[in-house]
Amino acid sequence: MILRVALPWRNGLRFRVPSGSRGCCRSAHNTLRNDDGRPIVISPPLVSLDIPDDWAPCPAHSCFSSPISSSNEQTATVIDGKFIADEIKTRIGSEVRRMKEGIGMVPGLAVIVVGYRRDSQTYVRNKMMACAEVGIKSMVAQLPEDCTKDQLLGALSSFDADPSVHGILVQLPLPQHLDEGKVLDVLRPEKDVDGFHPLNMGNLAMRGREPLFIPCTPKGCIEMLLRSGVEIAGRKATVIGRSNIVGLPTSLLLQRHHATVSIVHAFTKNPELITFVIDVGTNPVEDPSSEHGYRLTGDVCYEEAVRVASAITPVPGGVGPMTIAMLLSNTLDSAKRVYAFT
Amino acid sequence: MILRVALPWRNGLRFRVPSGSRGCCRSAHNTLRNDDGRPIVISPPLVSLDIPDDWAPCPAHSCFSSPISSSNEQTATVIDGKFIADEIKTRIGSEVRRMKEGIGMVPGLAVIVVGYRRDSQTYVRNKMMACAEVGIKSMVAQLPEDCTKDQLLGALSSFDADPSVHGILVQLPLPQHLDEGKVLDVLRPEKDVDGFHPLNMGNLAMRGREPLFIPCTPKGCIEMLLRSGVEIAGRKATVIGRSNIVGLPTSLLLQRHHATVSIVHAFTKNPELITFVIDVGTNPVEDPSSEHGYRLTGDVCYEEAVRVASAITPVPGGVGPMTIAMLLSNTLDSAKRVYAFT
Repeated sequence: MILRVALPWRNGLRFRVPSGSRGCCRSAHNTLRNDDGRPIVISPPLVSLDIPDDWAPCPAHSCFSSPISSSNEQTATVIDGKFIADEIKTRIGSEVRRMKEGIGMVPGLAVIVVGYRRDSQTYVRNKMMACAEVGIKSMVAQLPEDCTKDQLLGALSSFDADPSVHGILVQLPLPQHLDEGKVLDVLRPEKDVDGFHPLNMGNLAMRGREPLFIPCTPKGCIEMLLRSGVEIAGRKATVIGRSNIVGLPTSLLLQRHHATVSIVHAFTKNPELITFVIDVGTNPVEDPSSEHGYRLTGDVCYEEAVRVASAITPVPGGVGPMTIAMLLSNTLDSAKRVYAFT
Repeated sequence: MILRVALPWRNGLRFRVPSGSRGCCRSAHNTLRNDDGRPIVISPPLVSLDIPDDWAPCPAHSCFSSPISSSNEQTATVIDGKFIADEIKTRIGSEVRRMKEGIGMVPGLAVIVVGYRRDSQTYVRNKMMACAEVGIKSMVAQLPEDCTKDQLLGALSSFDADPSVHGILVQLPLPQHLDEGKVLDVLRPEKDVDGFHPLNMGNLAMRGREPLFIPCTPKGCIEMLLRSGVEIAGRKATVIGRSNIVGLPTSLLLQRHHATVSIVHAFTKNPELITFVIDVGTNPVEDPSSEHGYRLTGDVCYEEAVRVASAITPVPGGVGPMTIAMLLSNTLDSAKRVYAFT
């Protein structure tokens, strides 16, 4: 019973799932159902996720899509991240409206982008659109590729001083000449909605402490598991990759939820069997037929994994939308803290 | 090839080692030897351990003691923590003298103790004696069991303001009425020689970052492994227990050294096989025949483990002396940073 979370591995290397091991993870067949037989999206609260514990059952659509029939007997439950994210965004939207009606304020998110990487531009555009959907005010500082450290810190400190900004994020990666660590150190932990400040990370790691923010992608992964009825406590979880922004916080968060966590990385010799796959990879693949000239795929060989895992998230439509929903949730949390709005 | 680090488990539960698995960890037989055939204590530097990389070979004594002959065929190499710690203390002593001669300053360590737990009193006494041995100035603030939070914070801030104090540690555990987390938050990371501040922990967890201090017990464990010629990179390491002061930082530190780390805790179902044991447990056992009325034992069933592990540390004489040596090393590092003394 291994719950494997596949995170960005080496660039270009797609992770292959060994066949022959199938887990006992709860599948669509034993999803909790209400009296009508309709599936209930269970929503235990995430650490510091300040939104209600009880959620309405999904009206017409389950967060588990039905297994697609195939000659190769696909049995993995496909977790629909986009559906879960939409549910969360709807709830965040109503919280934002309640805040606006109650105190005349809305949460504000500021994004700093350096340069014009097409993947970064896409991510930022998606974040802005999601903010608009739920009523969060958003603003972007677009800096040139060759901007100086001082220009970047200047943008940071002006957002830091702006009381209408409750969350600031620096879109990563930064160009080589800028030291990410030093830039992130300057960001106040109180506005660090990405949760990448070492103080937030330390508080995530330590028992009995609460970070002000949990990094959005790991938070989205755990939220998907919880809402899909996967019990994390006592399960073995293998995290592939140990980056500061995904692998590390995911392992810390799984451990907070009492999983027995193993972290696999470039030095690991024999990665173990898989029964559950959350694919956090996003690799741009050239595709002239698609709107932007490329499309995104995950790190996992989906066609193989879907036949041996007990549940899986697709790319796109899995972790991506959840990450954005968690960013909105973190920004809302931040504004609530500032205004002492409950 | 599992390298298992046994950390404090549940109180009173001694960890039993399943037989039948023996690792391929480097034993006394293949310790590096110099031209005379004498073993060389290898000393790669620990992260932030600011003492020289090359160490003199052990003159007459190896840090590996010879296997004791036994009818039950003990094959585990016993790692002599006390010997390694003495080596390190000798080096720290000469560094302190060099500092005193060079700039007329010595490192200073302040310890705050609340109440009169006999184990805490023993630990503090040992730390003070070790400071005296190497020439580090030490001072203790002994507060009554029922002291208020403000009294404790007062002691902390007076040491914080004292420029001759380069390291402050609050002896844990504190009495129930005092919130450890809140007390440790007040300690400035620059004097946090125990490395328990969340900012130091976050920087320990994150790649590309350096904590100002690494917690002493984990640092001592890794140092023992490195000096015993155990290669950590690529090995599987299982950390039993996930406390903030031992289990968590040990797993983070092993991961920094590129081990594939699994963390086993109360929710874990089937802990795996063992080949290497570092016993970090210290359990006081009533013993009227001993000087203080009790003696210390580890968490591991030593008599069993010594027959199946490839290497093992005893209690006492394993991790304990290393912890103190690392505290001295952290205090020395702190003073060097303050005085920009290299």
